[in-house]
Amino acid sequence: MNKSLFRKRIGTLRQRLAVLSPDTMWIIQPENRRYLSGFRAEDAQLTESSGSLLINQQQCILVTDSRYTLEAEKEAIDFEVVTTKQGLTEDFPWIVNRMGTKKLGFEEDHLTYGIYRQLTDELGALLPPVALEPLKGLIEEMREVKDGQEIKALEASADLMSEILDQVIAGLRPGLTEKELAWQIDGLAREAGAESLAFSPIVASGPNSALPHAVPTDRKLGMKEPIIFDVGVRLDTYRSDMTRTVFLGRPSPDFRKIYRTVRKAQLTAIEQIRPGVESNQPDRIARQVIRDAGFGDYFGHALGHGVGLATHERPRLAPQKPVKLKKGMVVTVEPGIYIPGKGGVRLEEMVVIEENGPRILTKNDRFYDFTS
Amino acid sequence: MNKSLFRKRIGTLRQRLAVLSPDTMWIIQPENRRYLSGFRAEDAQLTESSGSLLINQQQCILVTDSRYTLEAEKEAIDFEVVTTKQGLTEDFPWIVNRMGTKKLGFEEDHLTYGIYRQLTDELGALLPPVALEPLKGLIEEMREVKDGQEIKALEASADLMSEILDQVIAGLRPGLTEKELAWQIDGLAREAGAESLAFSPIVASGPNSALPHAVPTDRKLGMKEPIIFDVGVRLDTYRSDMTRTVFLGRPSPDFRKIYRTVRKAQLTAIEQIRPGVESNQPDRIARQVIRDAGFGDYFGHALGHGVGLATHERPRLAPQKPVKLKKGMVVTVEPGIYIPGKGGVRLEEMVVIEENGPRILTKNDRFYDFTS
Repeated sequence: MNKSLFRKRIGTLRQRLAVLSPDTMWIIQPENRRYLSGFRAEDAQLTESSGSLLINQQQCILVTDSRYTLEAEKEAIDFEVVTTKQGLTEDFPWIVNRMGTKKLGFEEDHLTYGIYRQLTDELGALLPPVALEPLKGLIEEMREVKDGQEIKALEASADLMSEILDQVIAGLRPGLTEKELAWQIDGLAREAGAESLAFSPIVASGPNSALPHAVPTDRKLGMKEPIIFDVGVRLDTYRSDMTRTVFLGRPSPDFRKIYRTVRKAQLTAIEQIRPGVESNQPDRIARQVIRDAGFGDYFGHALGHGVGLATHERPRLAPQKPVKLKKGMVVTVEPGIYIPGKGGVRLEEMVVIEENGPRILTKNDRFYDFTS
Repeated sequence: MNKSLFRKRIGTLRQRLAVLSPDTMWIIQPENRRYLSGFRAEDAQLTESSGSLLINQQQCILVTDSRYTLEAEKEAIDFEVVTTKQGLTEDFPWIVNRMGTKKLGFEEDHLTYGIYRQLTDELGALLPPVALEPLKGLIEEMREVKDGQEIKALEASADLMSEILDQVIAGLRPGLTEKELAWQIDGLAREAGAESLAFSPIVASGPNSALPHAVPTDRKLGMKEPIIFDVGVRLDTYRSDMTRTVFLGRPSPDFRKIYRTVRKAQLTAIEQIRPGVESNQPDRIARQVIRDAGFGDYFGHALGHGVGLATHERPRLAPQKPVKLKKGMVVTVEPGIYIPGKGGVRLEEMVVIEENGPRILTKNDRFYDFTS
């Protein structure tokens, strides 16, 4: 990532901040932090932050503790790194005071009520007092549309995952367990240079494939049953997310029909994904295809979601709260049909929205053409 | 875990609730949830909860969404599982209303301000209105003292980690990289049946060992330099945490002295750990040993912390905010000396506090006796 990229993002944030009530913005969410500063550290536990950003029209400050000072100075090149001595809530008042802050905007979806309450007391007691004001989704909205470098990073992440999945599918045989396969994927990802998997991998076979969020078990793969792989890697902090359903041997006519329907729903929905379209439109189309085939009761989740620094981010492709799709958004398209006790099929692609329409980033071609 | 164990914990919570202002307690923190109900699911992202508990004097309810219903019903046997249709904040009002709640206590360190704000509006609009009241550390305090079954689980977790580390240390040779070793530990942990590592493993060699929270790099191990392993596994949801520092070949007199000092500080501190002692006392003793040897400026962090369902939990063995140590607490004892640019030594044991004093749970004996 180059320097000018972060400067551009800070510039955009400052433009937005100029028309909002707070004069300083406090960024605590790890991916938002990474997006604006380049600082890559993750948070060890929910209650253990590795740092946060304070940005106003003049200054960019990264507040962290001594464990992360060196890392922060190396990665967040446009930021002044301030190391807390006592702890965040103890040192925060003087840092904010020094910045001349009067109203501090914070990310209400990422700050605990407890810290909010403590800081409200401490900042309110300052002279002059500093007020806290909740903000929602400010950086998340900036992250919706990816720039060229981000799209390249997401494509590299998807390419790596595609290759790994290809290799895993080529080695499938009856008797391997779901856990062994999940473990194999994890190993291949690290060997190939991924930082980690993007999320706990789903490997779900037979009846387990009817659970959209199945956890890998010791169940052994059997013949002619669906095996769902829903997997992704984190490469250079960008995530991929893709799903394939495979069979050992030709499946029953029922599963062939289900597969055909899911694939048709997916391809029809992808066709719809272009700038200006409402985000609920592809979901509606996919749902219609599945309903027409008689499986309307068996597709419970949303069609897709944005993917980037986080596995799940904006926009959602769902029936509720539509937004207009824009050029540069990267979304998953993942219809599924799940028959309880029997099994399911899900197929998921990552798609970037270009000027002229969708381009698929997940190039793994392990699809079946069950024309009958 | 057996049924009566969870009933006992719920009984203790109800006793405490009886003398507090809220009539119902809302538990959202994953380890607290697990502790009270047996429900093992983790939260996929900070903002994506897999469920929460509502407990009053009459009822125990686990609120989740359809992805986790089956799992919740199987694991949380004393709880009525309620599956939300619309989402947590949408369905919450009627669930709370049905329970007859007037004042709902929530964990202020684990609820975001955003959800607090939204729920305050929604619950305040009910007839009769429901008030939200922040609570802090209620379940965390219950978790401080472990029962017999928990100590067995922690010992099993420590045993597994000890064996793995033994095997890894036996296979050390110059040229292996920190990353390769971290990866090897991860692999051995899974093969041995651990759910996962307890945290991202630290493997830090040469000058990297001077960073208490080093992330494994591509650096190759050299001769006579410190190699710090700070590692733990998650076994049956209980975590271990241990640190050894090893050398390939006999290190310099300087490092022998540093090692000897750290080990002495550790053993002297462990001696102090018994019921009734203030939690800052072992820290003070360890710090004194290190200061007396001339390394007072090079031990920056606290001596230790509680470990259980979480890697870091109460009590802390630190200079600040002392509490009385109790029988059944499990703590780490991990002094270190870090010389910037040169290297460091840290040694960490897990210790259970018994009636008559400390018992070490981490039985790996890879220690040196550098008497000179």
